[in-house]
Amino acid sequence: MFGLIQQARARLAPVLPPTPLIRSDFLSRRLGRDVFLKLESLQPTGSFKVRPAFNGMLANLEQARSAGVVTSSSGNFAQAVAYAATESGVDAQIVMMRGASKFKRDRTRGFGGTVVDCEDTFASRWETTFRIQEESGRLLLHPYDSPETIAGDGTLGLELLEQLEGDFDAYVPISGGGLISGVATAVKQVRPGCRVIGVQAKANPSMHDSIKGETAVTTRPEPSLADALAVATPGERTLEIVRRLVDDIELVSEKRITEAVKLLANEQKLVAEGGGAVGVAALARGGRPAVCVLSGGNILPEKLRSVLAAAALA
Amino acid sequence: MFGLIQQARARLAPVLPPTPLIRSDFLSRRLGRDVFLKLESLQPTGSFKVRPAFNGMLANLEQARSAGVVTSSSGNFAQAVAYAATESGVDAQIVMMRGASKFKRDRTRGFGGTVVDCEDTFASRWETTFRIQEESGRLLLHPYDSPETIAGDGTLGLELLEQLEGDFDAYVPISGGGLISGVATAVKQVRPGCRVIGVQAKANPSMHDSIKGETAVTTRPEPSLADALAVATPGERTLEIVRRLVDDIELVSEKRITEAVKLLANEQKLVAEGGGAVGVAALARGGRPAVCVLSGGNILPEKLRSVLAAAALA
Repeated sequence: MFGLIQQARARLAPVLPPTPLIRSDFLSRRLGRDVFLKLESLQPTGSFKVRPAFNGMLANLEQARSAGVVTSSSGNFAQAVAYAATESGVDAQIVMMRGASKFKRDRTRGFGGTVVDCEDTFASRWETTFRIQEESGRLLLHPYDSPETIAGDGTLGLELLEQLEGDFDAYVPISGGGLISGVATAVKQVRPGCRVIGVQAKANPSMHDSIKGETAVTTRPEPSLADALAVATPGERTLEIVRRLVDDIELVSEKRITEAVKLLANEQKLVAEGGGAVGVAALARGGRPAVCVLSGGNILPEKLRSVLAAAALA
Repeated sequence: MFGLIQQARARLAPVLPPTPLIRSDFLSRRLGRDVFLKLESLQPTGSFKVRPAFNGMLANLEQARSAGVVTSSSGNFAQAVAYAATESGVDAQIVMMRGASKFKRDRTRGFGGTVVDCEDTFASRWETTFRIQEESGRLLLHPYDSPETIAGDGTLGLELLEQLEGDFDAYVPISGGGLISGVATAVKQVRPGCRVIGVQAKANPSMHDSIKGETAVTTRPEPSLADALAVATPGERTLEIVRRLVDDIELVSEKRITEAVKLLANEQKLVAEGGGAVGVAALARGGRPAVCVLSGGNILPEKLRSVLAAAALA
């Protein structure tokens, strides 16, 4: 996998410059340790997902150009695939649940993707996606559980290693597990003294619960400010990597996530979505330098307004 | 002045790492030109003002440590001086108008400054400041019209030249004129083909109006979302530099400023204050690469909420 990440890095270099890693003076002061933020919210579509979207497409560009691509996502991966496809001269069909927000639909269409509706279940979304793939021969871009996706995600880990010296604790949001699998592979290979800590919302603990037993656990996603992290079952491939390389998985409450989004806006002047802020929500006081991956900033404007109005954490 | 800027750069290097310059995919697409954003909102106090605050203090550190410092500001410079003083082991008195918001007072105190109240006029603020300076022998840090302040501001220009190749148009907010004086001095010295464009709110056109005639014009600041840019009269020193080096000064409406703050939050995931967003508000379509200095992000949380709720510009 590490070799695939290095290949992905070379592929992405012409299309995606590294995102900034900044030291947060405010968080460092508050927590008594150096806290760094990796600003994936500044990616073209507002999340890290452009990395795997581009990598999957560029790794199979001939097929993508001749047959198009298809993916299954109601959120950040949808927008990222639409964007990467448009930039690469590729036709993209994105299977989204009917219940997905107008905001996400509009953004996906705005980046040039064609939205295909399905029923409001993960099962229906996958069924529709696989049917389109089989009937049309389109290239399937998986949101988390393919080698190209994990390798694209892993480029973020390589950037961290270049941007920060010495050992650090990396706090990485987990949905299907692609991002943390890629980051952990890169970071542990190059600097094994680093720790990689996954973070999920208490409302959606699928990976957290799955690593306890022998097989993947299917949970029922509950409403959460970290809506981008909702997934019923972790990937098979990502689960194996997480078991092997991730040091710990922490769960954070809705209250902590809300407070983190609010602090990031008011004190750090960064708009983060709930799923992008879980790393900050999980940060403990003291210890060695911490890196929080702000994985995305695509929060609904009305949600951001209500978070800004929320009372401070007692 | 260019030599002073280079000295300032060396002085600030250990305390303030360069802020990121990012390419905004969204704005570049929308305006049909490469648009870059210089993220001063990510500075420790949320604005570029830490540059001149540190430079003024470190240039005269012995006096600052023995007698303390004093400044006159109701906003970003107040917070920056408080921060730089605390970091440098210096006592700071900050003269603020009684009417300054609780948010700004609390932030100034939070960074370790002592707030001294004065009446709600610029005249009273300066009178109080000068009196303290004379009675106590404190080092006066001027928010815009001293060589050390302009030189500290100019370090931002040197960073731009390192971060971006080729000629560009720089859009720089103007209040007293310190920032644009420093940036124009650095940029025009090294790359004279660059253009430097100042931006003010229509509500506060003091520099815009002053460069037309022979002498500085005093205007009555009107309420504006770009409250950090409100100043009655530009500096003498800055007015001279602006006349000589700045290519143009544009005025932007409240509606445009509101729209810019909203777009930056929703599309670019950055919290900018009104005064920090005027460059984006002034951007015209097409042309060569543009750099907008996002000078600060210290918008009142309730103002940000109302901006997010504002209707789109027709």
